[in-house]
Amino acid sequence: MTQELRDDAIAILGGTGDQGLGLALRFARARRPVVIGSRNAERAAKAADEVRAAVPGAEVSGLENAEAVRRARIVILSVPFESCAATLKAVKEALAPGQIVVSMGVPLATAVGDAAVRTLGVWQGSCAELVAALVPEGVAVVSAFQKVSAHRLRDLGHPVDCDVVVSGAPEPRRAVMALCGLVPGLRAVDGGPLANARLVEPLTALLIGLNVRYKVSEGVGIRFTGLPEA
Amino acid sequence: MTQELRDDAIAILGGTGDQGLGLALRFARARRPVVIGSRNAERAAKAADEVRAAVPGAEVSGLENAEAVRRARIVILSVPFESCAATLKAVKEALAPGQIVVSMGVPLATAVGDAAVRTLGVWQGSCAELVAALVPEGVAVVSAFQKVSAHRLRDLGHPVDCDVVVSGAPEPRRAVMALCGLVPGLRAVDGGPLANARLVEPLTALLIGLNVRYKVSEGVGIRFTGLPEA
Repeated sequence: MTQELRDDAIAILGGTGDQGLGLALRFARARRPVVIGSRNAERAAKAADEVRAAVPGAEVSGLENAEAVRRARIVILSVPFESCAATLKAVKEALAPGQIVVSMGVPLATAVGDAAVRTLGVWQGSCAELVAALVPEGVAVVSAFQKVSAHRLRDLGHPVDCDVVVSGAPEPRRAVMALCGLVPGLRAVDGGPLANARLVEPLTALLIGLNVRYKVSEGVGIRFTGLPEA
Repeated sequence: MTQELRDDAIAILGGTGDQGLGLALRFARARRPVVIGSRNAERAAKAADEVRAAVPGAEVSGLENAEAVRRARIVILSVPFESCAATLKAVKEALAPGQIVVSMGVPLATAVGDAAVRTLGVWQGSCAELVAALVPEGVAVVSAFQKVSAHRLRDLGHPVDCDVVVSGAPEPRRAVMALCGLVPGLRAVDGGPLANARLVEPLTALLIGLNVRYKVSEGVGIRFTGLPEA
């Protein structure tokens, strides 16, 4: 991988976590260059090794978050809600106009020691809008991937079987919807403007509750019915 | 139909509206006694005639809301969010301990002249919890049916194809989940305690936005994947 920002590369901040690593595996498998970001460059490099082991020939590197941001047009923020603001502040200088930050966070009440089946109110309306308030001008924010099961992402032998609601301004939204097409079983659903993340993020807490009540370890997903064929 | 409260009867307040009438048709077709309630007894009687015409032999009556409440253990509140409080206040005296009120309302921003693709904040947390604050002691409130398409309900020739998340205390929740089994294509999903309506109600605004963006007149629905077979 070269040292410049690449349009086809995808950076995943918090890419050493379960869901981030799952996305890294899937995008690498779709032959897209992947940059795993972490606060700790060593952990990022280790996660990159893991991807290379699972996906022979994968074009993947592991870097400190701000370095990762400099390598890819699309930057996926795959850190817990309570770490979103700090992570963005740490990489703000590295972000340039034209880049797209994907918010996956959900304001789960675990952020304050309560349970993941409940959410917190966010002043800006949603995690995605909090992220939008923190990125430099000219950087677009798109909301996506909140409800995708880490377990299913990492199980490369099977399709993920989940709809992904993508919200944001039209051009960056389309770019992120195209990413979904890289992962077998993921279907992008046009979620309209970014503020609709307020309607989408609470779903994750609902799905976590369903996992508990129905004892589903692989993760309950969601499908919209009645949509026209792509 | 006798004049007493019947355990197997289902009252639908606002049953002259699109969604309420759709539920009335489906429950009548499943051979359950149905009582259509309206502020206007004449309109209620006309809606009952409509059900009888569509479902020969249906046991259905149309009454003023408070009278309808006195005839059925389960009372479905199928009025717009902005009418929920007034409707409940008007029937409060008729409600008795042991009855179940089903909240279908969604705090759509249309209540204040804004668009149905956005929601309002509700002090109690959700429409269902607002309803729970307004019913007499001993009356249970369950949240359900928000996202079921009126168009699909009324199209008796086809299954509805939608999951219904049912939230509330365990016993009344189970009673309402059993109602879903009466309608072909509806699947009840255990939505846990009533406060989870906060996670479910916003979905309706999302689905309305999807109907618009994808030009789906029959109504986009929702299915959860990965749940164990019933």
